[in-house]
Amino acid sequence: MATTHQLTPSRLHHPSASSAARVRATASLAHPHLLSRRLRLAAPDSRSPSLSQRHGRRGAMSVRSSLIDPDGGALVELVAPPDRVPALRAEAEAEALPRVRLAPVDLQWAHVLAEGWASPLRGFMREHEYLQSLHFNCVRLPDGSLVNMSLPIVLAIGDADKEQIGGKPDVALQGPDGGVVAILRRVEIYPHNKEERIARTFGTTAPGLPYVDEAIASAGNWLIGGDLEVLEPIKYNDGLDHYRLSPRQLRNEFDKRGADAVFAFQLRNPVHNGHALLMNDTRRRLLEMGYKNPILLLHPLGGFTKADDVPLPVRMEQHSKVLEDGVLDPETTIVSIFPSPMHYAGPTEVQWHAKARINAGANFYIVGRDPAGMGHPTEKRDLYNPDHGKKVLSMAPGLEKLNILPFKVAAYDTVAKEMAFFDPSRSQDFLFISGTKMRTFAKNGENPPDGFMCPGGWKVLVDYYNSLQAEEATPVPV
Amino acid sequence: MATTHQLTPSRLHHPSASSAARVRATASLAHPHLLSRRLRLAAPDSRSPSLSQRHGRRGAMSVRSSLIDPDGGALVELVAPPDRVPALRAEAEAEALPRVRLAPVDLQWAHVLAEGWASPLRGFMREHEYLQSLHFNCVRLPDGSLVNMSLPIVLAIGDADKEQIGGKPDVALQGPDGGVVAILRRVEIYPHNKEERIARTFGTTAPGLPYVDEAIASAGNWLIGGDLEVLEPIKYNDGLDHYRLSPRQLRNEFDKRGADAVFAFQLRNPVHNGHALLMNDTRRRLLEMGYKNPILLLHPLGGFTKADDVPLPVRMEQHSKVLEDGVLDPETTIVSIFPSPMHYAGPTEVQWHAKARINAGANFYIVGRDPAGMGHPTEKRDLYNPDHGKKVLSMAPGLEKLNILPFKVAAYDTVAKEMAFFDPSRSQDFLFISGTKMRTFAKNGENPPDGFMCPGGWKVLVDYYNSLQAEEATPVPV
Repeated sequence: MATTHQLTPSRLHHPSASSAARVRATASLAHPHLLSRRLRLAAPDSRSPSLSQRHGRRGAMSVRSSLIDPDGGALVELVAPPDRVPALRAEAEAEALPRVRLAPVDLQWAHVLAEGWASPLRGFMREHEYLQSLHFNCVRLPDGSLVNMSLPIVLAIGDADKEQIGGKPDVALQGPDGGVVAILRRVEIYPHNKEERIARTFGTTAPGLPYVDEAIASAGNWLIGGDLEVLEPIKYNDGLDHYRLSPRQLRNEFDKRGADAVFAFQLRNPVHNGHALLMNDTRRRLLEMGYKNPILLLHPLGGFTKADDVPLPVRMEQHSKVLEDGVLDPETTIVSIFPSPMHYAGPTEVQWHAKARINAGANFYIVGRDPAGMGHPTEKRDLYNPDHGKKVLSMAPGLEKLNILPFKVAAYDTVAKEMAFFDPSRSQDFLFISGTKMRTFAKNGENPPDGFMCPGGWKVLVDYYNSLQAEEATPVPV
Repeated sequence: MATTHQLTPSRLHHPSASSAARVRATASLAHPHLLSRRLRLAAPDSRSPSLSQRHGRRGAMSVRSSLIDPDGGALVELVAPPDRVPALRAEAEAEALPRVRLAPVDLQWAHVLAEGWASPLRGFMREHEYLQSLHFNCVRLPDGSLVNMSLPIVLAIGDADKEQIGGKPDVALQGPDGGVVAILRRVEIYPHNKEERIARTFGTTAPGLPYVDEAIASAGNWLIGGDLEVLEPIKYNDGLDHYRLSPRQLRNEFDKRGADAVFAFQLRNPVHNGHALLMNDTRRRLLEMGYKNPILLLHPLGGFTKADDVPLPVRMEQHSKVLEDGVLDPETTIVSIFPSPMHYAGPTEVQWHAKARINAGANFYIVGRDPAGMGHPTEKRDLYNPDHGKKVLSMAPGLEKLNILPFKVAAYDTVAKEMAFFDPSRSQDFLFISGTKMRTFAKNGENPPDGFMCPGGWKVLVDYYNSLQAEEATPVPV
């Protein structure tokens, strides 16, 4: 998101009536602590299911432990209980079970599925789910209602894999390093029409779409769906796993903090003061509306991103500085990593970003200009109309229960020397600093205008681009 | 549809319970008469609104005059009452009203909209309807429910038109011949991203899609939506207007005949005996299910079709012969023209074909293999997976109230010397005669196998292809 925007509430429900019924049984205010401490302290207790797990369906109980139900009523969790793992491993390692090797992006999707971000999906899509996702951006539940599902979450295999599997019902999935990570059961194999999938998902078939190049173009001509059973929680051992809270862990954390509203902010860029202005303003407005303890879920995307985006470890360090510098309040902010890969599919993808946050317990979602957008890969224009994201999101089937918070543009106010909501009556005073311009500043060692970003956060970016240039300057051994 | 298929009911509601409540107040059985006579006799009385018009909303009255409610509850009709026409014409012809010239396909869509085939749409789509259609294949009603709307019904204009309109609220629409046919009110102009529209509608952007070449590629870069007010019923003066019954006229006709089930058959090809077998078999099964008077709506598409399809007048003559020859029963069949243009958009378009027939009062819809499909324009394969049409149709939001009747393949049985449902246990006995093969027979003056099509119908096709060849052989004046 290059710029930030002023909050203009839409579809807001005033909390006075509805939130009374939503007050949790065991609300308790969290102690103030810094982000890093909070994350250590917040180790969730996976042995005690929440009220929403035990009484997940709406109306099953008058008191619920979360602010918004997961899609389908109950959070899907596909990691096997520890006592079942030896039997699963023996089964997976038996010669008889066919094996499919996951690419890194496939593993990220397995992670997403395993933790229930895509509830009610119980595995990679079978054809009836894939077709509904592709044509309707939603899937129908057995009770006839619709949940949002805008991106196909599918696993592609090649001819050799298909032949190896034959008519066998279950398949072992190996991670990129070869270890078995999951078993896919009662599989269904169906054709992978890449052209149609790309056209319907991205609204273009132009060459150069990052996700297509990474995960579709060279993938197999078949898709395999089934029920996923994951052997162990998926970890990346990159020093950031402690940031990867599952939807259940996030829901527990919101409960522990006594949140009566959770507003999610999806991002894949460094946080500048315009973003912060927006998030702080959102909190102020929620307080004005009568909420007592709104919690911000600052939720950077952690899966595949395109080559010129700032890498995840750098972003996480930058986000930490933003909290350390007090630009965002650690007491009312949870920083966590959203494990999904990025499609750059604009209005189609922003629905996924919002839907996944429902499952994580957020009941407010902030959407800006051109969410999940990028430049057209072959033409000099935005790939998507920058206004379509928030429009499509506000109309999407299955997202009715989520409060969508669109916001107006923010920019650098050269008079006040700070990021401020854009005032069209004195437009000449404002400077728009795009992500590209920001990166150019950092690359060239130039400073952005005072007040654009906190100094600690800016230093992280400068150091990153310096290290890149040092790397480029290092002769490659022949 | 190259081949026909055996009926395998899905989502069928047995009539015993529900149809009792649906029995019309003024049911009367139609007298037996031949098709041409029936069409003359069936001139509907537009002055007396039906019960469903006066009490259109579900639940407003316990007795209703039709078998299935129009989408949105009441049939939309946009032709102005005769006493209002002089004022409208004066307004439209005033210098002040900007004018937009409709292409032939635009006029067909104006016709579709005017008669309520696209109910609840009240004119060419504004952006919020367009986006919902493009992303969700459905639009949301004010009460929160969804109706199906899979094809964007939009009007494109160029830069000069946009400039001419400026901020004016109302625009006069001229037919291809220059006469004013309608006024579009409270217009909204928004960008026409053709690439995105094509990709999301067709699932491909390959060059050579017939509808794209005809109506999108060279259309303007803006779309204009608004409320349509049509001056007079749209006529084509091609000798076929008497076949063009509106949804209201069809509903009245079904009532007059005392139909307790109406099953619609969409087609854009000549009717062969395989089609007839299927339609007659459907009727038999509906009778078995307890319906007393199922009526077939044989409903050829009358708008734009691709160059190598058989033209509408030839098809209508062929359909008449099929009824004259007794292959279909005129007493229980209504032949009428569906005025929509053809997109050849497969699973996306079949939803439109079904949805429009809901508005015309059909509560059963027959769907075959590869509906609205065609060959890929640049690759040697079907553009769509032939099974996706019926799958997508059965899952489409907003079509829940329609009974979908998928059917199995029929082919020419060389032993019985007739069209029959394909029996895989003796597959070597069956001959598949595609549309292309049928046209090749007719072009070359060869006869198809006995029993493929009634002789009168076949002669119509042979005469048509002879006339084409005679035309091609005539030297073109230089």
